[in-house]
This record gives sequence, C-alpha cells and structure tokens, in this order.
Amino acid sequence: MNKISKKLLQIIADFTDEFRGAFNIRENGECAGRRSTPNIRIETKEGAPGLVIHISSEAQKETVYIPACVTHGGVDDLVYNDFYVGAGADVTIIAGCGVHTGSGETARHNGIHSFFLEKGAHVLYKERHIGTGPENGKKHIDSVTDAVLLEDSFLEIDTKQIGGVDSTLRKTTARLAARARLTVHERILTEKEETAKTYFTVSMDGEDSAVDLISRSVAKGASRQEYHSRIMGNCRCSGHSECDAILADRGTVNAAPELFAGCMDAALIHEAAIGKIAGEQIIKLRTLGLTEAEAEEKIIEGFLRA
Amino acid sequence: MNKISKKLLQIIADFTDEFRGAFNIRENGECAGRRSTPNIRIETKEGAPGLVIHISSEAQKETVYIPACVTHGGVDDLVYNDFYVGAGADVTIIAGCGVHTGSGETARHNGIHSFFLEKGAHVLYKERHIGTGPENGKKHIDSVTDAVLLEDSFLEIDTKQIGGVDSTLRKTTARLAARARLTVHERILTEKEETAKTYFTVSMDGEDSAVDLISRSVAKGASRQEYHSRIMGNCRCSGHSECDAILADRGTVNAAPELFAGCMDAALIHEAAIGKIAGEQIIKLRTLGLTEAEAEEKIIEGFLRA
Repeated sequence: MNKISKKLLQIIADFTDEFRGAFNIRENGECAGRRSTPNIRIETKEGAPGLVIHISSEAQKETVYIPACVTHGGVDDLVYNDFYVGAGADVTIIAGCGVHTGSGETARHNGIHSFFLEKGAHVLYKERHIGTGPENGKKHIDSVTDAVLLEDSFLEIDTKQIGGVDSTLRKTTARLAARARLTVHERILTEKEETAKTYFTVSMDGEDSAVDLISRSVAKGASRQEYHSRIMGNCRCSGHSECDAILADRGTVNAAPELFAGCMDAALIHEAAIGKIAGEQIIKLRTLGLTEAEAEEKIIEGFLRA
Repeated sequence: MNKISKKLLQIIADFTDEFRGAFNIRENGECAGRRSTPNIRIETKEGAPGLVIHISSEAQKETVYIPACVTHGGVDDLVYNDFYVGAGADVTIIAGCGVHTGSGETARHNGIHSFFLEKGAHVLYKERHIGTGPENGKKHIDSVTDAVLLEDSFLEIDTKQIGGVDSTLRKTTARLAARARLTVHERILTEKEETAKTYFTVSMDGEDSAVDLISRSVAKGASRQEYHSRIMGNCRCSGHSECDAILADRGTVNAAPELFAGCMDAALIHEAAIGKIAGEQIIKLRTLGLTEAEAEEKIIEGFLRA
C-alpha cells in the first residue's frame, strides 16, 4: 500500500496501521489487503469488479472496513459491493473513499452498493468522502446505493463529504418492508467550482415502516449543490425529511424534496431551510476573540457535525 | 342571466342581485353584464376571448367582480383576462368560477390571467371554484396565472376549490422586482375520483422581494392531488412555502416543493405535512356530542378555513 493510500485511509476510516476484524482495502482498483472473520466473509464478486460480503446472523457488534482509494490520475475505478446481512445481525460498515490526483489527470471512483438486510438485521453504514492533491486534476466520486430492508431491519447511513471532491453524484434507493427503518444522515461541503448532486428514493411498502432523511449542506465559493428526495408512503408508515443548507460566497443550493402519500395512514413531514450564517452568530463568536473567518469556520464545523 | 348562473354566482362571488362597483359576468362564454367605473375600466380583449381590465392609480379600496359560469354541458370556455394595475392602486378582484352540467356532457372553464402590477400597487385576488350538478357530466376548471410585480407591489392570491370539480390544473408563475411581495393561500378539497394539480413558479429577482405560498389540501374518496412549487431566490430575498394535506378514505397527495437559492442572501424555508386527522381530535369533538362523521367534517372545515 502506498503512502497516499495510508494518509487517505487515516482520514476516511481512522486507519492507523491495521484494521481490527474483517476488512478489504481497495487501492487503484486492486485489492491491497483483505481479511474475513468467522461471521463476516468477504469474497471477490464474479463477473464484475468488487466484493460480495456475507454477514451471518452471528455477527453482533462487529465492524467491517471496506475503504477504497484512488491515489493518482488516469484511474477510473468502478466497484460493485454487495452486502448480504443475515437475520438479526448487528454490524458497522466503514466504507469511505479517498481520491487523490496531482498529475493533472482525472481520478474517479464509482461505487455501486447493494444491501440486502434480512429480518431484524441492523447495519450502520459510515462513509467519508474526500479529494486531495493539487487543483490540476479533477477528483470525482459517484455512488449508487440500492437497499432492500426486510421486516424489522434497520439501516443507518451516515455519509460525509469533507472536501476536495470536484463532482459527486449520489443515488440512493430503498424499499422497506413492515417495521423496517431507514435513517440517512448526509453532510456535504463544497467549495470552489465543485458540484454535488444527491437523489433519494424511498418506498415504504410494509406497515409501520419509517424513514428519516437528514441532509446538511454547505456551499462555498462558486460551488453548486442539488438535493432531490422522493419519499413514498404506500401503507401505514411514517416519513420525515429535512434539508438544511448554509450558503457562502457565490454558492448555490437547489432543494427538491417530494412526499407521496398513497395511503391515509401514511404520515409524512418535510422541512427545508436555506440561508447564510446569521450575523448574530458571527458577532457572538467575535466577542469571544475569533476573527470573522474563524467564526464562520466554527459555525460550519458545528453545523456539519450535528 | 339564467337561474343556475345566479346560484353559482352566489356561491363563488357572494352575489345577491347586483354587484357594487365595476363588474363583468361571463356566462357560457358570453358577457351577461358589465360595468366600468371611473377608476376601473373593463374592455373586451382584442384578438382573443376575454377582458382587459385597466385599474388606475386613483382606485383605492375598490372592488371589481369578474366571475365566470358555465351552466351546461358541451361548453369549453376559454378566457384571457389581463389586469393592468396602476402605481399605488389598492383593489380587490373577485374572480370565482362555477361550472355546472347535468346533461352527461362535459363542461369546462379555462382561464388565463395576466397581472401587471405597477410600483406600489396592491391587489387582493380572490377566487372560488366549484362544480355542481349530477355526476354524469364532467366539470373541469383549469387556470394559468402569470404575474409581473414591479417594485414595492403586493399581490395576494386567495383561492379555494370548494368541491365538485372533476379535474383542475393550475399553473401560476410570478416574477418579483425589488421589495415586491406575493402571498398565495390555496385550499383545495377533492373527493370521489377527482384530481387536482397545482404548479407554482416564483422568481425573486429584486432585492428584498418576498414570497409566501400556503397550500392546504383535503383528499377524500379516491381523489388525487399534486402540489409542485419552485421558489427561486436570485438575490437578497425571502421565501416561505408550506403545504399541509389531510387524507381520508383512499385519497392520495403528492407534494413536491423546490427551493433554489442562487444567492447567499436568499433565505428560503419550506414545510410540508401530510397525514390523516389525528384520532384525539375526533375523540375530543365526539365527547362534545358530535358523531364521528360530523367531527371529521368540522375539522376539515376548520383546516380549509384557516
């Protein structure tokens, strides 16, 4: 594994010198290390680049790491990762992606994820995205996530794009059976000429299923962000979505959330707020000795942490 | 004017036996009465069916009535109404539409409205829509509204679809100059197999312009409603939209509000809530002696009045 990979892994997956438990490290489209455990079996996918990850019902409070790095330009990495999560399993998946290029050439990671959660399974899926390296050389991270949640399962998606990604396009779809729950917590920071687009489509098909989508955006520089969501309540269910955005400089945000209630027992709520940092917040922090720029940074940091 | 028209006018425009001030009554595509006043001149539009209404700056706290009725099947009424509202004028426009058919044939009213509000003009535009007559015979009311609001002008649109309209499609667009304000308060009740679709597109182009869209829907029976809005904040401005819907029976609602902030000084907020009437509300009214059906009716009445 090269030095840039190590640095990226540190940022996206808290990597020090090793991972505990199951892991697979993807480096420029190749496998740079892998370990299965008795309850988490990581296999090479047949017929397409990527992994098939079998998590057995016995996996309880286990973690699997599957970070991916692109460390130079001229790489267009495409990976398919399929997760089969057994009934009642309880796992954390750490799946960040770091893209670096300093050559002037484009570096790109494209991840296609499928989740199959058996009854009562619980998955916390954490994903940090970052781009590094000088400006000459575009960094792109795109992802498609498709999740099937069987009865009583619970999928928590926690994603964060820290910075330096020139463009990202994320499409997430999920279908929920009875009493299944999906929560998505997305935070995206863009600056310069970066663009970020996210699409969520969630179909609640089983009684008492629930979804909670929370998106927080910061658009600085001349960056542009788009948020689209479509929550469909086709039965007795509850859905909530919230998208808040902070604008700075010449950043722009488009928020387009959609709620469809196809049943009178569907309860759906949406909230959105877009604006700049309130002047009073800046003044308050300046009285504590911070410069205006420091105050702004602190506020944005807090906003994206929450 | 025929009896059905009189009845419809009573419902949509509080008509008793005459209107005070300026008015034009449209009955099955013909003019059934008109009066101009010194400050409000109503003229026949040239080259297309409809009216050109000139409201002078001198019009202060005046009202103009321009209701339209379709009283039998086989009518497909199309009307263009252009409103030129002088600087500083302050008027109320009562513009309801009633459609009746009992013949089994379709009755349709299609209204295309253009508003030009000069600097500082204030217009309250009130519109009630209703369909009456037996079920054999469809009633359709469609409308397109395009508004240009110059500096410091204020347009209040207050619309209510009371019931009996098989399908409605409403498209409203507005462009706001500096300090112009637009408020829209829309209430739609659908039942049986009725459908209602509304689209709002508002572009805030002048500093300190503001928009407030409030939509309240009740979808009963097997009716279907769609709400789409797009608020664009292209400068320092504020926008708020809110769509609340009550579902009953097999009614469905799709709410798709979109916010675009193209400037860091645009402050945009959206809220939406869709659901059925809370059980506690029904219980509370039942303890006061109402039946369940009466309680439901009371709650819906209050919801659409607010």
